[in-house]
Amino acid sequence: MEPGGDAARFGPGWAARALPQRLMLLLLTLLSGRGLHVAAAASSSSGAAAEDSSAMEELATEKEAEESHRQDSVSLLTFILLLTLTILTIWLFKHRRVRFLHETGLAMIYGLIVGVILRYGTPATSGHDKSLSCTQEDRAFSTLLVNVSGKFFEYTLKGEISPGKINSVEQNDMLRKVTFDPEVFFNILLPPIIFHAGYSLKKRHFFRNLGSILAYAFLGTAVSCFIIGNLMYGVVKLMKMVGQLSDKFYYTDCLFFGAIISATDPVTVLAIFNELHADVDLYALLFGESVLNDAVAIVLSSSIVAYQPAGLNTHTFDAAAFFKSVGIFLGIFSGSFTMGAVTGVVTALVTKFTKLHCFPLLETALFFLMSWSTFLLAEACGFTGVVAVLFCGITQAHYTYNNLSVESRSRTKQLFEVLHFLAENFIFSYMGLALFTFQKHVFSPIFIIGAFVAIFLGRAAHIYPLSFFLNLGRRHKIGWNFQQMMMFSGLRGAMAFALAIRDTASYARQMMFTTTLLIVFFTVWIVGGGTTPMLSWLNIRVGVDPDQDPPPNNDSFQVLQGDGPDSAGGNRTKQESAWLFRLWYSFDHNYLKPILTHSGPPLTTTLPAWCGLLAHCLTSPQVYDNQEPLREEDSDFILTEGDLTLTYGDSTVTANGSSGSHTASTSLEGGRKTKSSSEEVLEQDLGVGDQKISSRGTRLVFPLEDNA
Amino acid sequence: MEPGGDAARFGPGWAARALPQRLMLLLLTLLSGRGLHVAAAASSSSGAAAEDSSAMEELATEKEAEESHRQDSVSLLTFILLLTLTILTIWLFKHRRVRFLHETGLAMIYGLIVGVILRYGTPATSGHDKSLSCTQEDRAFSTLLVNVSGKFFEYTLKGEISPGKINSVEQNDMLRKVTFDPEVFFNILLPPIIFHAGYSLKKRHFFRNLGSILAYAFLGTAVSCFIIGNLMYGVVKLMKMVGQLSDKFYYTDCLFFGAIISATDPVTVLAIFNELHADVDLYALLFGESVLNDAVAIVLSSSIVAYQPAGLNTHTFDAAAFFKSVGIFLGIFSGSFTMGAVTGVVTALVTKFTKLHCFPLLETALFFLMSWSTFLLAEACGFTGVVAVLFCGITQAHYTYNNLSVESRSRTKQLFEVLHFLAENFIFSYMGLALFTFQKHVFSPIFIIGAFVAIFLGRAAHIYPLSFFLNLGRRHKIGWNFQQMMMFSGLRGAMAFALAIRDTASYARQMMFTTTLLIVFFTVWIVGGGTTPMLSWLNIRVGVDPDQDPPPNNDSFQVLQGDGPDSAGGNRTKQESAWLFRLWYSFDHNYLKPILTHSGPPLTTTLPAWCGLLAHCLTSPQVYDNQEPLREEDSDFILTEGDLTLTYGDSTVTANGSSGSHTASTSLEGGRKTKSSSEEVLEQDLGVGDQKISSRGTRLVFPLEDNA
Repeated sequence: MEPGGDAARFGPGWAARALPQRLMLLLLTLLSGRGLHVAAAASSSSGAAAEDSSAMEELATEKEAEESHRQDSVSLLTFILLLTLTILTIWLFKHRRVRFLHETGLAMIYGLIVGVILRYGTPATSGHDKSLSCTQEDRAFSTLLVNVSGKFFEYTLKGEISPGKINSVEQNDMLRKVTFDPEVFFNILLPPIIFHAGYSLKKRHFFRNLGSILAYAFLGTAVSCFIIGNLMYGVVKLMKMVGQLSDKFYYTDCLFFGAIISATDPVTVLAIFNELHADVDLYALLFGESVLNDAVAIVLSSSIVAYQPAGLNTHTFDAAAFFKSVGIFLGIFSGSFTMGAVTGVVTALVTKFTKLHCFPLLETALFFLMSWSTFLLAEACGFTGVVAVLFCGITQAHYTYNNLSVESRSRTKQLFEVLHFLAENFIFSYMGLALFTFQKHVFSPIFIIGAFVAIFLGRAAHIYPLSFFLNLGRRHKIGWNFQQMMMFSGLRGAMAFALAIRDTASYARQMMFTTTLLIVFFTVWIVGGGTTPMLSWLNIRVGVDPDQDPPPNNDSFQVLQGDGPDSAGGNRTKQESAWLFRLWYSFDHNYLKPILTHSGPPLTTTLPAWCGLLAHCLTSPQVYDNQEPLREEDSDFILTEGDLTLTYGDSTVTANGSSGSHTASTSLEGGRKTKSSSEEVLEQDLGVGDQKISSRGTRLVFPLEDNA
Repeated sequence: MEPGGDAARFGPGWAARALPQRLMLLLLTLLSGRGLHVAAAASSSSGAAAEDSSAMEELATEKEAEESHRQDSVSLLTFILLLTLTILTIWLFKHRRVRFLHETGLAMIYGLIVGVILRYGTPATSGHDKSLSCTQEDRAFSTLLVNVSGKFFEYTLKGEISPGKINSVEQNDMLRKVTFDPEVFFNILLPPIIFHAGYSLKKRHFFRNLGSILAYAFLGTAVSCFIIGNLMYGVVKLMKMVGQLSDKFYYTDCLFFGAIISATDPVTVLAIFNELHADVDLYALLFGESVLNDAVAIVLSSSIVAYQPAGLNTHTFDAAAFFKSVGIFLGIFSGSFTMGAVTGVVTALVTKFTKLHCFPLLETALFFLMSWSTFLLAEACGFTGVVAVLFCGITQAHYTYNNLSVESRSRTKQLFEVLHFLAENFIFSYMGLALFTFQKHVFSPIFIIGAFVAIFLGRAAHIYPLSFFLNLGRRHKIGWNFQQMMMFSGLRGAMAFALAIRDTASYARQMMFTTTLLIVFFTVWIVGGGTTPMLSWLNIRVGVDPDQDPPPNNDSFQVLQGDGPDSAGGNRTKQESAWLFRLWYSFDHNYLKPILTHSGPPLTTTLPAWCGLLAHCLTSPQVYDNQEPLREEDSDFILTEGDLTLTYGDSTVTANGSSGSHTASTSLEGGRKTKSSSEEVLEQDLGVGDQKISSRGTRLVFPLEDNA
């Protein structure tokens, strides 16, 4: 077991995990390459070799290339058309307040229709590309130099193809064109979705339910993965018995399937919750769980791939390999977490200590670049970029967001909102398309039915028991109706699809991919359509204003402390975790917030006296200024240095107080602009009896809270 | 001569033009490809072939792939670091009001430094990739199937390499990694820059000077291209005489150089103008010229490439080929223009006739997708995407922008502003990098000095004569100091670089690339740094508020009509063009604006009586409502259908009136949000004696104009 060891030492499985990311970013694929046709065009225009024969030959190649270029454009246009259609229909649905079908479900339907047209409506053009068989030695090289009558051409490896598929390579150009590299999903489309999830997290409600969310996300996903894996192994055994299985299907494959299908994505349900203003705690539970279990599922699936017992006996249980997998899980997860947090902290420091907020464009650009670099940094270090981006998003929202100018706040939010929207709808319309255009489907009715049963059981097996145990410690019980709703909201979506399409080389993986696709379809359509009736049937209150909802006294830590009237017994582990969290919060409030943002108590009061100079340098002068009303001196607002603080109101924390009251000392303009996002800015109430803070009379700085 | 004919009939040159765009979009390059390593990872995890030898082999391949993946990440990180550094330094400069160095110049310097480090600081790693020479028949195929001991691998063609370069292919991995495919510039980075230019055009001042701008952009660029081409041909002859030329360099190459180097990009100057609020007319002239001459230069360069005389005698003058080139120029330009305009109009119609503005996110996404589809559509039809995107931007700003919700207006502006900023600084930092990392530089001192002289003469040869002729017809003369400033502002930038790097296959093109790079460096640094002194030296007024500047009576058409007191003689051509423009404006105001936007006179009053029903359907109900004050009935503002009109003020156009006065009937909220962008919204004053409009008593609807 080598947790935290060098990536190279994790063996082939570890390496394998990073491999699919090779083509990583769209930009990267174009690195260091110049097209043949550029050269061809050049030689034709400079007329260096003006022989007729070569000119004719070039002409033919050029025409082929031009044709291919047009097809590329047309295939991308297809997707744009799909998205445009989706947008217009969504508008119609929203306009008419139709809720039985979500935009993602709609995108899938349109994708499906276009897929059918492409599959059955377009002629199977015989490819222009001739192929050449050239027997070679031992292994495949990634670069090939080919000598064609004196000229040298450079070729790059695209992939291995099974001998049976050789003829189908040049089958239908259009179908090939609309088939994207799976890594596009992982490296281009998921990061903005995940970052947006982290960045738009409603922090107050998230942190209030953090314990439960972590339990559902980590324990729940692990339980679900294990149960689905085992059930599917039974199904596979059954299929073998009835002769329905034509190729190998191992136990690790089943566990891998369990991992990828455990990533829930209740995007449909959450959209309806948002629209109806359903119960905020339930929303936080569902949203938090789905965000974190995506991260868990990614890391879990790569750990399972990394489970590689020693020796030839690759599919029996091997304790060493198992613990290595666990180590890899912990290593990747904590590494990615650290990466994300560090980039977030660096961005916070940069935005705090420069006056970049006078130039919102620069600020937004910096924010975007830093968030993107998290992804690259994690990938460069062998961690998981998507997970790093999630935690980067949370850190950025917690610290950096407070340092940004008002304009940058809305800019960054809107930028990532648009990216998220486009990426999500693209993925879902691609899913619809893939059902008909993907050429390696393996439909197995037994496996599919088994999978539906397994995901149902897998979800039931963690929602109910975990809720029971959590309720022992929670003051706000997770009610029976909430549990039913969580059970019901176990949709599968973009992440499951992205994990499944990432690797469709073997027979087992192809069957998994097909099954995942069908599961996503049915859960999104059926469960998505049933959310509104389900809400009213389960008597879950809607129309709740998240900010009007007064936080019950001592709520934020009671959840974890377990010292409420219900769990008076109080077990020691819970006490410890509560202690840990209390420690974290006072650390965050006393040191991190003052260092990284313009809020919090001055460091000069929280740090020991001997580091007074350092404390003075790190503390933002605005922290001291918070007592004075800022309105008068900064009335011109634009481009004055103090403009940031205008958006804050002051709020004094009493000894054990729920800081409900805060007087808004904001200018009209600043207040109005933050309106739409003020809900997310809301700091976590630090309603614990942290005597140190209150005795020194420091003040928590709250952004303006108005009921948007 | 076949203008407007089928693209295929334009012959090889035409095809060649479209070829370099083959790899077109980053997304496209990933179409239909699955990495080898995915397959490798899959087989290792499914354990299908668990033999030790193949496992070891896979391990080796995986490690190589992982290494390559990391290097990819690191090289992208390099660029992000560069941009981050640039942003921070720009902030420092802006903060300290340093104006001698613009952000683009700074980006180049940082790029240069990193380029030096990469070139001389990194070890020349011997590539991991082995290469195989495999002699093949007649021509290169774009797909290659290679049989490696029973397994088939698919390879794709990357490009031709000259025999001398075979060893250098695997020379320095890091240098290779930071070398982007030139098409990235053309297809990813330029479109947002150009679209932003079109979208952020200050319409009033642009249209006021439209005649002059068109003259500078079209005639000026053609003159400049021809003069530079001929001068450079002289330089090349000289180089041949003194034996400094080691390879072929034709007359068409010289003209091509003239075309690519005629694209001016006074980004530095314009930034300073913007900051100092320099004279708006001069700004409009410079900005308009630089935007349009980019488009002209692209099309001109591809027409020159398309100049392919019949027969073997490829480098003498051939009238038929010449006229074909002219036809191609006109065909491509008008086709791209039409594409862009059509997409803009479609977007305007969609945003007008749906109530999409209730959902700004959908609206923004639709706007983004439609604008992007222009590029793809133009490419799919064989036109120039970049040019289409420019005109799409102008159309979107003129029509669609008025239909957007207040939030979408700022969203779209900010989105494209950020994209533009990132793309521009990326290009400039890449330029700095390329000076040291590009491996095929051809430095020729004579050529470089000749080129500097030629661009100087080429600019002088069109600025002064054209200004003289334009002044004959202009009421607001282009003064001597403006001419000097325009002469001085002939910077070269992103477009020249992108056109030059697009094709560096031949010796002549490599020499052009190196020269272009140096010209960009020196003009950006030296000319950029000299702008502020130059402004004060030339007595050009600064600190002008573009909206306070009252438009002189009859100004907008006087410019073109040429019937001002100065040019009382009035030549017939000018009268005609004025008549044309007047026709266009009354058509735009009476028909297009009412059809495409919510403003303008109702169609029922402008269209003949017999199409009354159609007119009624097409006219926005808000046009009729404009008389009533809207404030009372729409006081809740958010999500009511009438919210759009809240941002409009009413303004009655008198018979020959400059519509200076408009009463603002806007809600506080709407007005505040448009503040920052109101300047651009300002419609072109239609201050002509259009009796038809005024006699019917219709009203022009103006967006709120406040002096932001």
